[in-house]
Amino acid sequence: MKYPNNIKKNYKKEINYKNRGMDLENLINDACKYYLEHDMAVIYKKPTPIGVVDVDYKNGAVINKAYFKEPSTLDYNGIYKGKYIEFDAKECVSKTSFPLSNIHLHQIKHIEHILKHGGIAFLIISMNSNYYLFKGDDLLHFIKDNKRKSIPYSLIQEIGYPLKFNYNIGIDYLKGIDEAYKGVGYFENTKN
Amino acid sequence: MKYPNNIKKNYKKEINYKNRGMDLENLINDACKYYLEHDMAVIYKKPTPIGVVDVDYKNGAVINKAYFKEPSTLDYNGIYKGKYIEFDAKECVSKTSFPLSNIHLHQIKHIEHILKHGGIAFLIISMNSNYYLFKGDDLLHFIKDNKRKSIPYSLIQEIGYPLKFNYNIGIDYLKGIDEAYKGVGYFENTKN
Repeated sequence: MKYPNNIKKNYKKEINYKNRGMDLENLINDACKYYLEHDMAVIYKKPTPIGVVDVDYKNGAVINKAYFKEPSTLDYNGIYKGKYIEFDAKECVSKTSFPLSNIHLHQIKHIEHILKHGGIAFLIISMNSNYYLFKGDDLLHFIKDNKRKSIPYSLIQEIGYPLKFNYNIGIDYLKGIDEAYKGVGYFENTKN
Repeated sequence: MKYPNNIKKNYKKEINYKNRGMDLENLINDACKYYLEHDMAVIYKKPTPIGVVDVDYKNGAVINKAYFKEPSTLDYNGIYKGKYIEFDAKECVSKTSFPLSNIHLHQIKHIEHILKHGGIAFLIISMNSNYYLFKGDDLLHFIKDNKRKSIPYSLIQEIGYPLKFNYNIGIDYLKGIDEAYKGVGYFENTKN
């Protein structure tokens, strides 16, 4: 488990990937830190939802019993160029298709809500050693128009936006957002 | 502790406040649910950040030891009329002034970041049985221009925006946002 809210004050430009996991979540957390440190976006991983059953307040509020809860929303959210951004990171083991069972029904409803209210929602899918931004809009259309229970890799390649790994950043998903949502981020209405 | 991500499917329009706490967090959580159910905004309380020390995977991933972590961001965030919204709820016991020690330094930095990137950030302060929306901009100006360690209640009354309690909603803070951030929420750039 990672707790990305602990932003390191002295961010190292070069991250040593040799001695650590190269998993999707780490690469995205690194990018979030990089973007924050370089004032490019403010995007955090939400804390893992945990149900607390028992707390020992005598010993400084130690939690003695708790359990992991199913998330209703997506893992990451924040702001980029004045726009609300929310996304989830999904590692896909299958080489041929991305199972929709990876996404909970309430997460799909949540994506619908975000889009309806003018936000940007998407998945970052890791598959066949490639990374793709798959737009929430395309996900909803696929679910609506298909009876398939998985998205073929060929379709992800076709309509997804490839994301590049960068040694300084991690997965440089802001570039993917710029590409996928052209015209994002005019600031006409940011009066506050 | 509350876990607002469990949105009830059958939302009761009339909430019985007789048998429950009327504390600020409940009243805001109720409003978030109301706004979501009525498709007015998508705003959630973030899960409480918890550091997990020990998990028993043999018995279905029961957490045996964990601790509460200090939040780096504000408690609530989401989207309203296409705008990024983030805020924190603060109950103030003092009747004369709101102590700035209620807000952590990294939360102040976070407010700065949000404003810089075109988002809306504020506090909801409960004080003397009244509720106020206090803009992040005003908070940063106060901290910059004053050596005081607390905001006088008179100033909160003067430049804050009063929020009304509504039996159907809870604390109707969207009205406060409309008032405090006039012109919020044109949708010219929501192309996704």
